[in-house]
Amino acid sequence: VNGVRELQVLPVPGLPEIGQGDRLGELIGARAQLAEGDVVVVSQKIVSKAEGRVVSLDAVRASERARDLAAQLGKDAALVQLILDESREVLRAERGVLVCETRHGLVCANAGVDTSNVGDGRAALLPDDPDASARRIRDELREATGIAPAVVVSDSFGRAWRIGQAEVAIGCAGLRPLDDWRGKADAGGRPLTATLIAVADEAAAAADLIRDKASGIPAAIVRGLGHHVSDADGPGAGTLRRPRDQDLFR
Amino acid sequence: VNGVRELQVLPVPGLPEIGQGDRLGELIGARAQLAEGDVVVVSQKIVSKAEGRVVSLDAVRASERARDLAAQLGKDAALVQLILDESREVLRAERGVLVCETRHGLVCANAGVDTSNVGDGRAALLPDDPDASARRIRDELREATGIAPAVVVSDSFGRAWRIGQAEVAIGCAGLRPLDDWRGKADAGGRPLTATLIAVADEAAAAADLIRDKASGIPAAIVRGLGHHVSDADGPGAGTLRRPRDQDLFR
Repeated sequence: VNGVRELQVLPVPGLPEIGQGDRLGELIGARAQLAEGDVVVVSQKIVSKAEGRVVSLDAVRASERARDLAAQLGKDAALVQLILDESREVLRAERGVLVCETRHGLVCANAGVDTSNVGDGRAALLPDDPDASARRIRDELREATGIAPAVVVSDSFGRAWRIGQAEVAIGCAGLRPLDDWRGKADAGGRPLTATLIAVADEAAAAADLIRDKASGIPAAIVRGLGHHVSDADGPGAGTLRRPRDQDLFR
Repeated sequence: VNGVRELQVLPVPGLPEIGQGDRLGELIGARAQLAEGDVVVVSQKIVSKAEGRVVSLDAVRASERARDLAAQLGKDAALVQLILDESREVLRAERGVLVCETRHGLVCANAGVDTSNVGDGRAALLPDDPDASARRIRDELREATGIAPAVVVSDSFGRAWRIGQAEVAIGCAGLRPLDDWRGKADAGGRPLTATLIAVADEAAAAADLIRDKASGIPAAIVRGLGHHVSDADGPGAGTLRRPRDQDLFR
């Protein structure tokens, strides 16, 4: 293994406003000079838009539970209903915050339901199956460019013990999500016991550094991770979700 | 704000084995072509070594509590004693895992005490004050090179709900640790309500992508974050530690 690498993160410029049915891989492929081994990181928001996962709050009928929670948290009742619909379980509902486990098993604020950058009175839901989204975008990229970069679908998640959000991989295809050093040796030949690096999350975080939240740069290329990229789509980012029965904090 | 940026992550090659008293800023400055606005990310392990925060397990006398916990978790009793000494509180002790709040207020496995890459029978403790470590390394870099890049001291932390570790900033100087978009507008002019990006953690994650755990590349340069770098050392990574009274999961 060559330990000396360089990494580049490049924006994909000029993407249009995305709507339902748009083929993201095609749009990205037409605007990016892709190379083998690249990782294309795509913001969840445009994936949700392309997949029609944007809903009008007017069309939502809030249940009594949603109205109670909304009153308690100072949130909109229709928005809370959407959050409940997306949730397998509400983990915390206090101080204006709803932390939920989504139907996918992701733990995040508001079950990933988000009203920014989708227009007034509307909310974006997470993709139904973010790993499938990543695979589809990868297929479209392959078809459009002849190159099959890895694809990560990313979203900003809060953390239990740390202030602020960091971008994580909610879906991926063609990228090894975890780099497992358990049982391998450190520089001194001593076995590493617990080293399992969340490469896909770190790639999502790296891509986030080149955008700001108003930039309209919802896709980026991370170049230099070719040793983690495979022809096969691989297990996806589902492997990064800690199952409830292995989680000491749920 | 210019939303189109590029980011580069470059290894600092050829650092020698670090020992107590080594001036990391000087050693890094002699091996890196630094530019204004760079962020130098330094692994906690070499900071701890330079600060003499490596101890011999032989010299540790384990208390009864440490011996009990060690037996319960299948760990070494002296190592558990070191972990308890570094901890303000043990949050979880089950399934072979000790999750602690350190004296600094960091929440991580084993209170950051780590036996990899320090030689047999030894363990590295976290720096006493990682923000002070970052400031000192920054001063040394400024003195050695005439340039004052921002400095991040990073470590790999597990996450509550996600598998694997990601690198985070346990100390920083000269880098704005959080990019606060709350109250600013999204691309459609709608106010962002909860967007607070943990830039320092994302920079640490990006730097981690160019090393593997046996590579001996304990320092990297993240180039392209100059808009977050300041002359002043700023508040440090302490601002990324969520205080217990704001934490819904402690």
